[in-house]
Amino acid sequence: MAGKPTIAIVGAGAVGGYYGGRLAQHGRDVHFLLRGDYDAVRRQGLKVESCDGDFHIPADEVNVYDDPRRMPKADLVVVTLKSTSNDQLDTLVRPLLKEDTAVLTLQNGLGNEDLLAKLFGGERVLGGMAFVCINRVGPGVIRHTDHGIIRIGEFARRGRSPRSGRIAAMFNASRVKCEVLDDLKHGRWQKLLWNIPFNGLGATLDLTTDRLIGTEAGLQLVRELIREVIAAARADGVTLPDELVEVQIKNTRTMGAYRSSMQVDRQQGRPLEVGAILGEPLRRAKAGGVETPVLEALYRAAEVVDAAVTMPR
Amino acid sequence: MAGKPTIAIVGAGAVGGYYGGRLAQHGRDVHFLLRGDYDAVRRQGLKVESCDGDFHIPADEVNVYDDPRRMPKADLVVVTLKSTSNDQLDTLVRPLLKEDTAVLTLQNGLGNEDLLAKLFGGERVLGGMAFVCINRVGPGVIRHTDHGIIRIGEFARRGRSPRSGRIAAMFNASRVKCEVLDDLKHGRWQKLLWNIPFNGLGATLDLTTDRLIGTEAGLQLVRELIREVIAAARADGVTLPDELVEVQIKNTRTMGAYRSSMQVDRQQGRPLEVGAILGEPLRRAKAGGVETPVLEALYRAAEVVDAAVTMPR
Repeated sequence: MAGKPTIAIVGAGAVGGYYGGRLAQHGRDVHFLLRGDYDAVRRQGLKVESCDGDFHIPADEVNVYDDPRRMPKADLVVVTLKSTSNDQLDTLVRPLLKEDTAVLTLQNGLGNEDLLAKLFGGERVLGGMAFVCINRVGPGVIRHTDHGIIRIGEFARRGRSPRSGRIAAMFNASRVKCEVLDDLKHGRWQKLLWNIPFNGLGATLDLTTDRLIGTEAGLQLVRELIREVIAAARADGVTLPDELVEVQIKNTRTMGAYRSSMQVDRQQGRPLEVGAILGEPLRRAKAGGVETPVLEALYRAAEVVDAAVTMPR
Repeated sequence: MAGKPTIAIVGAGAVGGYYGGRLAQHGRDVHFLLRGDYDAVRRQGLKVESCDGDFHIPADEVNVYDDPRRMPKADLVVVTLKSTSNDQLDTLVRPLLKEDTAVLTLQNGLGNEDLLAKLFGGERVLGGMAFVCINRVGPGVIRHTDHGIIRIGEFARRGRSPRSGRIAAMFNASRVKCEVLDDLKHGRWQKLLWNIPFNGLGATLDLTTDRLIGTEAGLQLVRELIREVIAAARADGVTLPDELVEVQIKNTRTMGAYRSSMQVDRQQGRPLEVGAILGEPLRRAKAGGVETPVLEALYRAAEVVDAAVTMPR
């Protein structure tokens, strides 16, 4: 990845469009693989309304594709596909790979790195969590309203690698704060402490965060669920302190009536990331012999809601 | 209750307004206790748009009250208050009672007769289930769209009593089909076979009936829940055949995209009848030593939703 590396963004929705757009805005050689918005972006370019400064990559400067076989091989593939489309990863990513291509998934939940490792070899794989409030507001138009930091880490290699430092430096030079984690798995589980209760319950019960933590009954359920996630993490080899239960709740109070991404998906009739956010954590708890009855009931109910909201009308 | 009995309707919402209205329309001496719609009904009377024929009890003919202490003592009190307001039963019903007043509750779920019996003595109490599609569409205006049969039975007395026959005859003479049950408890549990899955899951997950039974995941959950209700009923001394699982599902298929009353309550930010429809059946299952994990998880989630939707904004 010396000189000017070639970067492929696979599944350029809001997250991929935003981060890829920032890299392109700052002179990187970025190639976007899109589906739904391909025509719009080819025609009008990529528009980003951002709390950190609006920008527009014009149509004649943006590299967009609807077929990975027409894209150049990449030095870095950034996967921002929804995890509900993971069955397409092989088709979409394999044509982009060279011998030493790194693959960074910024997808939600657990299991995405494992799948990429199985498909393309674990040495290639890095994972990252994007802490960002972002939405696609129209074809090829992204609105970024808050936060934006990415935390990345190696999957199969131990600790911080030189390449993870180079990737972070590239983001940091492009108006995206990026930190390198010593322990990706720890970071993944830590993010699940929020995602499981607030994406999970928020989407399944169709309640905004303020309503989930605004009543005694809701608070009790949220607390119990976060304690189960801490127990599940421990079963998966990650130790998180119990104090984080109240930290999640305290941080969430500042967000007001926030609709989690999974609740938005539900309301718009899109598939929910049930497998990555609830199913895989539950599977690991079970594999570690830990009982998580609230998570299990939530997973099951979320599967019902997912099937119901995506049912053909 | 010889001659022309005095009938009090306590909590005259859609159900009380409709059935009380039918009795008044057919010359019975009916007295309505209202809260929210008191002014509207006093001013414009009671309007009913019904699939069995519209009718209107004019303002100068309808007996409406907002205070039970101003009402005449009744021969029959019909309780159609929402069970979420059961803490007001003592205040609302006691002033209406004579030595031999009968009290018939048409409320949903389990436990309403028990509470009335505790307050006023079991001998007085009858219960009934209204199978009716009915809505309040405006102040003092009720829309009745389908069905309408009532099934009533004695609570503390065994079998069919003369008074239950007289009450049924009165309804049947007023364009309301009414049947007398040998075993009220059996009827209550039978109705819960539908109410628990479709009111419970419908309100908690905010899904119409067609979406609950339109996918494999939903069907499995509904079936498992109905089987648990059958087990809970057995623990409470009521035997219901397993074939009723598929009967519920088959009957529900004919209803299309139906919003259960509890789902409507949820969407309108009104209290959900969680205690009567889910809590008391669960309590009886536990008392009988029967495990009902799906019902238990549903009850808990419904409590969270109930608290959340009624949270002050």
